Amino acid sequence: MIEEISVRYLDSFTGNKPADPILIEGLPGIGQVGKLVAEYMIHMLGAKKIGEIHSIYFPPQVILEECGLARLVRNELYIYRASGKDLIFLVGDHQSTSNEGHYLLADQYCMIAEELKVQRIYTLGGFGVGHLVNDPRVLGAVNRAELRGELEAAGVVFNREEPGGGIIGAAGLILGLSAKRGIDAVCLMGETSGYLVDPMSAANVLAILSKLIDVPVDPTKLNDRASEMEKVIEGLVEVNKVQKDEELSYIG
Amino acid sequence: MIEEISVRYLDSFTGNKPADPILIEGLPGIGQVGKLVAEYMIHMLGAKKIGEIHSIYFPPQVILEECGLARLVRNELYIYRASGKDLIFLVGDHQSTSNEGHYLLADQYCMIAEELKVQRIYTLGGFGVGHLVNDPRVLGAVNRAELRGELEAAGVVFNREEPGGGIIGAAGLILGLSAKRGIDAVCLMGETSGYLVDPMSAANVLAILSKLIDVPVDPTKLNDRASEMEKVIEGLVEVNKVQKDEELSYIG
Amino acid sequence: MIEEISVRYLDSFTGNKPADPILIEGLPGIGQVGKLVAEYMIHMLGAKKIGEIHSIYFPPQVILEECGLARLVRNELYIYRASGKDLIFLVGDHQSTSNEGHYLLADQYCMIAEELKVQRIYTLGGFGVGHLVNDPRVLGAVNRAELRGELEAAGVVFNREEPGGGIIGAAGLILGLSAKRGIDAVCLMGETSGYLVDPMSAANVLAILSKLIDVPVDPTKLNDRASEMEKVIEGLVEVNKVQKDEELSYIG
Amino acid sequence: MIEEISVRYLDSFTGNKPADPILIEGLPGIGQVGKLVAEYMIHMLGAKKIGEIHSIYFPPQVILEECGLARLVRNELYIYRASGKDLIFLVGDHQSTSNEGHYLLADQYCMIAEELKVQRIYTLGGFGVGHLVNDPRVLGAVNRAELRGELEAAGVVFNREEPGGGIIGAAGLILGLSAKRGIDAVCLMGETSGYLVDPMSAANVLAILSKLIDVPVDPTKLNDRASEMEKVIEGLVEVNKVQKDEELSYIG
Repeated sequence: MIEEISVRYLDSFTGNKPADPILIEGLPGIGQVGKLVAEYMIHMLGAKKIGEIHSIYFPPQVILEECGLARLVRNELYIYRASGKDLIFLVGDHQSTSNEGHYLLADQYCMIAEELKVQRIYTLGGFGVGHLVNDPRVLGAVNRAELRGELEAAGVVFNREEPGGGIIGAAGLILGLSAKRGIDAVCLMGETSGYLVDPMSAANVLAILSKLIDVPVDPTKLNDRASEMEKVIEGLVEVNKVQKDEELSYIG
Repeated sequence: MIEEISVRYLDSFTGNKPADPILIEGLPGIGQVGKLVAEYMIHMLGAKKIGEIHSIYFPPQVILEECGLARLVRNELYIYRASGKDLIFLVGDHQSTSNEGHYLLADQYCMIAEELKVQRIYTLGGFGVGHLVNDPRVLGAVNRAELRGELEAAGVVFNREEPGGGIIGAAGLILGLSAKRGIDAVCLMGETSGYLVDPMSAANVLAILSKLIDVPVDPTKLNDRASEMEKVIEGLVEVNKVQKDEELSYIG
Repeated sequence: MIEEISVRYLDSFTGNKPADPILIEGLPGIGQVGKLVAEYMIHMLGAKKIGEIHSIYFPPQVILEECGLARLVRNELYIYRASGKDLIFLVGDHQSTSNEGHYLLADQYCMIAEELKVQRIYTLGGFGVGHLVNDPRVLGAVNRAELRGELEAAGVVFNREEPGGGIIGAAGLILGLSAKRGIDAVCLMGETSGYLVDPMSAANVLAILSKLIDVPVDPTKLNDRASEMEKVIEGLVEVNKVQKDEELSYIG
Repeated sequence: MIEEISVRYLDSFTGNKPADPILIEGLPGIGQVGKLVAEYMIHMLGAKKIGEIHSIYFPPQVILEECGLARLVRNELYIYRASGKDLIFLVGDHQSTSNEGHYLLADQYCMIAEELKVQRIYTLGGFGVGHLVNDPRVLGAVNRAELRGELEAAGVVFNREEPGGGIIGAAGLILGLSAKRGIDAVCLMGETSGYLVDPMSAANVLAILSKLIDVPVDPTKLNDRASEMEKVIEGLVEVNKVQKDEELSYIG
């Protein structure tokens, strides 16, 4: 019988425990902000894959890789062995398709963190505001009040009314569920329109996260992607303006 | 593994059994009537928190408190130790997101009532009528026919056709499921439009509940809030009237 | 912990086994045809209640009875002790709200039939055709080919293409699942528009069922209700015709 | 209690193990392509039924067969005993109605394959492109990279970007889940509009599958059906063109 959720570590990892690790979650979500940051860090730091998570709560499909190779929807764990303080990344294709599955998966992620003796969790996400943002802020949430000061010092904004609706999905639930296991967790949310993949927002989250964990990550390529995206958006805004002018002249 | 539903009592409460308690349920619902009444009573009586309920049937998110502190969606239990007859309150952020979860949670609430040797349960809710109501009535339902007389004497209206669709969610299910455990339960429903948070309706429910349980609660602040809401609604009605007039003059 | 499905027999019934019983299912469905027939028979024959079924797969609400008494949504079992051949009725407020629940409940009904040594099951339903029907036929389905002849002799229509979409819900699933337990089962479906409660269709189903089980049931009151409904529909058709004429004269 | 998924083999099959079998899955899906191919092969090869699968994850209904005989929604297994290499077919009425059910059923299919010592699985499906296709290609996916060459040699197209959204349902999940059990699996997808049952696409899939498994299947009847369908579509296109012309002349 298939397990509801299965975690499998690669043989190369087993018995090779991480040192005082930090867990960074960047699953798909609003503006793909968290996913962009975590996958960019994995790429730039050359983090190595250590495990896979499969679940019947993911969408019932396979993903096709370049060579026509089909694989189950999955989440993945990567490790970057920094000096004295390892980084573990949780990334993947999808989050749960059901409400209950969200809880069960998020609790599984916290169980993994506990097993690997994770010292702190950073969950990354986007904070959708519904309009274009020029200089996206990085908003924060914590699962222990004492964590807030350190984040504010690094430039994270805490705003009593934002996000008013709470934090939905893994980025939020991990904060709530890790508290029960005594693990500190922090959520960094890049402000974003919510309409488009947002590398600008991701770049700002990366800058702050990099500072907080004291692991330098060259932001050049992400900034390049942000600049390209900025041009795309300027183009869209321009087209939109022309259309509005035309509508007006038509009415006029 | 995460429990589907977990109940945790605070240490300060354990071993400190309530005396002949009454359970008052005021979870979110139509017009937030039940929630308003129960939370107002907790505030005015200075009831103390004694426990928390978490569940995978709640929405998969965390709530942000003022200081950016994230916590799981939850229901809470409070106690007010009246002389000889304690009040226990069940309040919270949300009800279940699934049909099955509604049953499982409501049964858990009844199990709590049984454990705490609750003598009677009051569930509070709104009864949505789809239009503004000037002097909202308080409708009742019971899980044992003999309970009806006492309620009618206190001003509760029993109307054969209302609510015709039954009572949906915790306020209703608790009545049905507590009967199986031999616990008397009563539902008080404040008539409400169903469109807006309704402190007027809540004030009427409070007045009757306060009489029924013989625990005086100063209604001033709730009445003030009702008055404010009344002005807001008058404003809305006025705007609406003006618009209609304008439409008519436009047509004319 | 609440059971997913619970069956409780009244004390008066326990140990008082039915003789060679027939089970008649008339749960809510298209045109309420099955429900009308089964509840009419219970009423006219003076059948006695013998049990209740509750389930977390029913809608999460309570029903209010006349005196403001709340009770859980439920299905009920009734018995009519005919000479030598008892009739058991399965009626109720609702069917399952989930697909899986439909299977689990229908299987539970078949388990009840097996326990009570039911010889044959009749499931009753409506067959929605989407337009008004003057003389509604009674269509049939069986779970063993040999049952067909007897039904055709009683006036049941078997039509290769009807209902093309199969039979959804309890009336259908009971046929499929009882076959696995070696119990003969037959579905009688009254043709109906599907838009309105349809006592005309129900009267035709009753006439055939009564003949098949050889238990006379005075149809007068059901026929009366059908006549009333016919007048209501004639009224609606008339109004509709007038409106169409007006539209035509407006266009013309 | 009903099992969530049950597999029952016919007595005639038990103890009569297939020789080095290949499993061919053709459940309902886009354009019914897979279903058409598998059921056509069963018909033309005279494959014999060996088993049935029932599940609470299928739609809650019965299907009516010609004589009014109701049967549960099911999937079926057939065998064609070719010389030295048996073919097993998995066909049926429906796939799962829930996401979790898709995983549980697909895993069950893989368990069956493992028990029967299946050497390779072919899953068949349609690849919806949203417009009419003149000469539909057959796209492929594999669960082990080394399988690709053999398929390309037989005319299967592997295209890095197709299908971009992955493969949803049984045809996809079987690939992913059989890999975990060490069984090679291949998906053949016939390009199709996705709007209509598509025997043209099915004929192309059949031609390639027949070549790959080296079992000749006379395609005449499927080609005939494809020709008929082509005429139907030409008719629809013609009607559409006339309508557009009329609209234009109306505007003009």
